[in-house]
Amino acid sequence: MIIDVLINRIIETKNPCIIGLDPDWDYIPQCYKFDNISETDCILQWNKDIIDAIADYIPAIKPQIAFYEKYGADGFKIFEQTVKYAQSKALIVIDDSKRNDIGNVSKSYVYGHLDKNGPINADFLTVSPFLGHEGLDPFIVHAITEDKGLFILVKTSNSSANEIQNAICMDGYSVSEHLGKYIYEIAKNNVGDYGYSAIGAVVGATYPEDAKRLRGIIRNSFFLVPGYGAQGGDFSSVMNCFNEDGLGALVSSSRGILYAYQEQYKNKTYAKNQYLDSVKFAAKQMRDNIYESLKQKCRSMRY
Amino acid sequence: MIIDVLINRIIETKNPCIIGLDPDWDYIPQCYKFDNISETDCILQWNKDIIDAIADYIPAIKPQIAFYEKYGADGFKIFEQTVKYAQSKALIVIDDSKRNDIGNVSKSYVYGHLDKNGPINADFLTVSPFLGHEGLDPFIVHAITEDKGLFILVKTSNSSANEIQNAICMDGYSVSEHLGKYIYEIAKNNVGDYGYSAIGAVVGATYPEDAKRLRGIIRNSFFLVPGYGAQGGDFSSVMNCFNEDGLGALVSSSRGILYAYQEQYKNKTYAKNQYLDSVKFAAKQMRDNIYESLKQKCRSMRY
Repeated sequence: MIIDVLINRIIETKNPCIIGLDPDWDYIPQCYKFDNISETDCILQWNKDIIDAIADYIPAIKPQIAFYEKYGADGFKIFEQTVKYAQSKALIVIDDSKRNDIGNVSKSYVYGHLDKNGPINADFLTVSPFLGHEGLDPFIVHAITEDKGLFILVKTSNSSANEIQNAICMDGYSVSEHLGKYIYEIAKNNVGDYGYSAIGAVVGATYPEDAKRLRGIIRNSFFLVPGYGAQGGDFSSVMNCFNEDGLGALVSSSRGILYAYQEQYKNKTYAKNQYLDSVKFAAKQMRDNIYESLKQKCRSMRY
Repeated sequence: MIIDVLINRIIETKNPCIIGLDPDWDYIPQCYKFDNISETDCILQWNKDIIDAIADYIPAIKPQIAFYEKYGADGFKIFEQTVKYAQSKALIVIDDSKRNDIGNVSKSYVYGHLDKNGPINADFLTVSPFLGHEGLDPFIVHAITEDKGLFILVKTSNSSANEIQNAICMDGYSVSEHLGKYIYEIAKNNVGDYGYSAIGAVVGATYPEDAKRLRGIIRNSFFLVPGYGAQGGDFSSVMNCFNEDGLGALVSSSRGILYAYQEQYKNKTYAKNQYLDSVKFAAKQMRDNIYESLKQKCRSMRY
């Protein structure tokens, strides 16, 4: 199962941290920019070099599609190529698109993002639950039958997440808890070798108490944990997302890794290899921080 | 302002109904399918013919991007081309993408879908509010400063809409009402010649009581009303979305118009012009139904 492939990668690399591949032209180093090459082609090369630099150290990448979609069809093309390239290097790919719609429309999104014959064929996809379970079902059915994975937005990392996600549903639970119980009911019956399901949840690193409560509800799922680093998520919150086996969470950072070079090489020229070293250094530092803390915290660490 | 352009189109065509341009290959008539032409090229021709057939009768079209995104970059290309073609025929284009993310990511979606220099440059965009106002703000700021429009999901038409949208927020209002009040506060300060704002709401045709209550809260905005026809939305619910001036709502139908031919030409061969006549006939029938009822119901009908 894809969830076991992911967990094996985490164990091999001793790393539950992933990198958000979010190309922001203003921050991409000059050594990747050429006047006679289109922005999208420059970005594709940058993506490939980053993937080569970190493929041995991380289990997965998470390209955020908005940064590609802003270039229209050309951006979509390099998104597809980036996914394929990462998969060819044995990286798991989490397609961060947060799609959502009514059931018959969601089916088209399923094909576009997760189908083996579709244009992207990612391993995992993020989806938004605003339309209720009917909009989620096509994604879930496909994930279970075709061995793909999902991360359903449950508690996002941003400052206004509470507005809707803390509202109280008919069953007396908050929207986040309600979604958590829904995910748990599906996940517990669809687990792989390590006892985890590929039907996961997005739980931001910025709300430690929510993370703790949701970890108690959604026991068999992985959490995709954004917000660590640039968004101000804290360490205790990240730790609350893990289970005692040191599994159950993927901590994602984007700007903190990709644009770390700006701190290091302020006002200096630098070559590609220097830039890629800075990416590798930041990625390893993040891994070491999280891994050391997990070893201290987890009573039955699996790796 | 774009909202006035839309309203002028409604008045000229005496029609508050729009067509969802949702290409579903299984339902597209045989006369548009050729073995030596790619599915996306066939769909583009189909779109253009439909636009030509109905451009004089309707104010706007609403292409649902999921049906294009399933073809990846090729689908994105014909989505862009369809938007441009419809705009060249003086149709307003509502890009139905329901995008949502945290603020700095939403900015990329804004560029991709609504920016004058971006690849799509639609007139209106649908957005999902699951991440709270921080994720919506970039869309709203752009819409107000660059004269674009939005339809924010407030109450969707599908069967499980209540699960999250009826949850009770901290202020004691349901998620839908909370969003309604948020939209009203922005909309009331950004109105055009007819007193309407381009910051609108999606309110499905399947929950008549909610439509009525939301109409009372969001007084200066247009409602985009899906669910009429194939999804089982009823007439009273649609009528509840309009104001007394006969404005304030756009009623959307897709399958009921595009695939009406299946009822008419069951088991028969038919040519393109016959198919397009069936589209035109269904579109006019919908317009007549809604318009006649509005004339009876509205005390200060503007057209």
